[in-house]
Amino acid sequence: MSAQPTAAPPATPPLAEGPLTRLRVLELGHFIAGPFCTRLMADLGADVIKVEAPGRGDPVRGWGEMQGGRSSIWWSVHGRNKRSITLNMKSARAKALLLDLVRECDVLVENYRPGQLERWGLDHDALQRARPGLVLVRISGYGQSGPYADRSAFGVIGEAIGGIRRLTAFPDGVTDLPPARTGVSLGDSVAALYGAFGALAAILDQRARQTPELRVVDVALTESVLSLMEGCLPEYGLLGKVREPTGSTLPTNAPSNAYRCKDGEWVLIAANSTPLFVALATLMDRPALARDPRFAENPDRVRHAEALDAIIGEWTGGLTVDDAVERLNAVNIPATKIYSVADIANDRQFLARGMIREVEDPAFGTVLHPAPLPMFSGGVASGGIRWPGPEVGAHNAEVYGGLLGLSQTMMEQLAAEGVI
Amino acid sequence: MSAQPTAAPPATPPLAEGPLTRLRVLELGHFIAGPFCTRLMADLGADVIKVEAPGRGDPVRGWGEMQGGRSSIWWSVHGRNKRSITLNMKSARAKALLLDLVRECDVLVENYRPGQLERWGLDHDALQRARPGLVLVRISGYGQSGPYADRSAFGVIGEAIGGIRRLTAFPDGVTDLPPARTGVSLGDSVAALYGAFGALAAILDQRARQTPELRVVDVALTESVLSLMEGCLPEYGLLGKVREPTGSTLPTNAPSNAYRCKDGEWVLIAANSTPLFVALATLMDRPALARDPRFAENPDRVRHAEALDAIIGEWTGGLTVDDAVERLNAVNIPATKIYSVADIANDRQFLARGMIREVEDPAFGTVLHPAPLPMFSGGVASGGIRWPGPEVGAHNAEVYGGLLGLSQTMMEQLAAEGVI
Repeated sequence: MSAQPTAAPPATPPLAEGPLTRLRVLELGHFIAGPFCTRLMADLGADVIKVEAPGRGDPVRGWGEMQGGRSSIWWSVHGRNKRSITLNMKSARAKALLLDLVRECDVLVENYRPGQLERWGLDHDALQRARPGLVLVRISGYGQSGPYADRSAFGVIGEAIGGIRRLTAFPDGVTDLPPARTGVSLGDSVAALYGAFGALAAILDQRARQTPELRVVDVALTESVLSLMEGCLPEYGLLGKVREPTGSTLPTNAPSNAYRCKDGEWVLIAANSTPLFVALATLMDRPALARDPRFAENPDRVRHAEALDAIIGEWTGGLTVDDAVERLNAVNIPATKIYSVADIANDRQFLARGMIREVEDPAFGTVLHPAPLPMFSGGVASGGIRWPGPEVGAHNAEVYGGLLGLSQTMMEQLAAEGVI
Repeated sequence: MSAQPTAAPPATPPLAEGPLTRLRVLELGHFIAGPFCTRLMADLGADVIKVEAPGRGDPVRGWGEMQGGRSSIWWSVHGRNKRSITLNMKSARAKALLLDLVRECDVLVENYRPGQLERWGLDHDALQRARPGLVLVRISGYGQSGPYADRSAFGVIGEAIGGIRRLTAFPDGVTDLPPARTGVSLGDSVAALYGAFGALAAILDQRARQTPELRVVDVALTESVLSLMEGCLPEYGLLGKVREPTGSTLPTNAPSNAYRCKDGEWVLIAANSTPLFVALATLMDRPALARDPRFAENPDRVRHAEALDAIIGEWTGGLTVDDAVERLNAVNIPATKIYSVADIANDRQFLARGMIREVEDPAFGTVLHPAPLPMFSGGVASGGIRWPGPEVGAHNAEVYGGLLGLSQTMMEQLAAEGVI
């Protein structure tokens, strides 16, 4: 394993080497979309200051597996490379302190319900006055405007509205089971990527035009998911065609499917061209299949895909998944096991690329992290993993003291009053 | 419908208003990941010049539904806002022409197999010499290095290796069906988002440091998918826990599932807190359920989720999906129909936000496009939809003539020789 040990959280962040080193980002975020957006920037070297409620902090600190009393294991990754400070947004002093922080930052990222920032007094004018040219990234379920803007954002609902849930399913009649989830918070993550991309675009605009206006990046989870829908929308508009799910296959090419193996694992085989299919028929010791009129050309194979898949499944059913993949790859037929996280953590390619990092976390010991993305080479380095997800308020002293210049006495008073 | 008619492709692009107006991007891409990456930038105003093989151009021009003889309907969206030029990369003159183009650009995006650029003579030194400080975005299945770098990139295979395919499924024993695809080219699109984000980060670095080195952004489809996997990797590393699929439910909260309605559609209900569940029990006219010890608190409901889902499914089975959603939303229980593209095209919120655009395409008439993302407000505007996907080589004259200054005679000669 390509070990990249990282020191415990330092008192002050070391000089980061990433392309976003010169950027300072304030995060008023919680759950997934906002914090993942800022983590993308922090991973490339940005100085991200995350504002959390005193005490428990971000709810994700309690999500997933725990080990010991502090934050979840997921937090080690989800909160990494950021500075955590506390601020009780309900306190009377919150607005002034937050605007003092905004003054020092290039970007503010938030993912509260539309209107919450304004209820805290952080409206357009206040933010623009505090930091002319500020970039404000707002991530929400449905966007900042329109009749549904006030609805609470649930990832599963946004994914269903954006169109992807309909397609993670089998055609009508195959099963009574409902469409599966993608199993991860896909809509939040894609919205976060749009937020990070939009933030950098707005910064480029701000640096080019130097105008003082606030630049608002308005990201909706539903719209982010819809952007993935290929040609569905224009095809519907012109032809009235409604894209329906095709289960585990491709609608237009065969054979391409997942097949069960002897050990219960699934092998994915994409032999969906005639030369690849001929190679597969030979490999299965069924060369006559390639001459069978049902399977001769792609349109034939699509029409008889069920029969063809049954034959291939019979062959894979006699092999372990490792054996099947080895035989298929040996004759250059694209194929893979459907990976579990155990397969991922031990994959030769991920390891060779440094994608699986070992990070020292004072809360847990050695933790596996995925590497910052994208990777860079040539004249620019990644920001790297500088430290794992910190404790709530771990950086209060260096941010309120060092960055804003508050005295020790003042910070103690704010803490005593429950402000920080 | 919020109509935003767009003129036919103009001879020269109008002054775009987007935040990336000052950026020029050369695309040596095909299929989905590379072209989607540059479309994200073109949609925000960048001048993207797409290089295609003379004749048929990008294979996506032949994908999905066609109407008439030119490019697919999908192309109207996939190729929009870009200038298309032709260049036969196998011709002897390609390298010099390509480097002349690189000289005029800030970014080069490519998604050929690793090593292909070098085989065309476009290696690190040649690119850096042509355009000091160039940002080169390379999108591939497995990344530019490592033992699998040379393998051909299939989206379905990359998604299986990145871990998402394993999770779009039901737990063992529920069904013999394999894990579904997400139904769209998810891995390509997420890789494209990382490419666009990384490109802008590298540009910020280049503008800050002004060093002449080539900056390489190295995006792998597999790694992009892996980045979506929440806490799976650290939980596996510390506890040996392998995340397994949970079908259409959430593993830790109930009830949250998709339920079949009388009209065959699915309603998604997220009543996964005790107050929401009490409201649901009342709405279903089964208030006693809220006092049933099997369903009293969330851990009870998770343990008895199957029985609970059967009861809810019985209730939804007596209602149309529209009726069910209306009743649920009236008492503030998060719920939605699982949208088809027909629902998307007619959704009040998408329409109010201008997310569904009507674009005039000379090949098709009025075509529905999804809006450029993210949306902007305040001091910056989106680039908008300036024109739909152009014909192969539609901009040869203005790029080779206008930008590179080749004479009409020279261009005719290059065309006659099959170079452009």
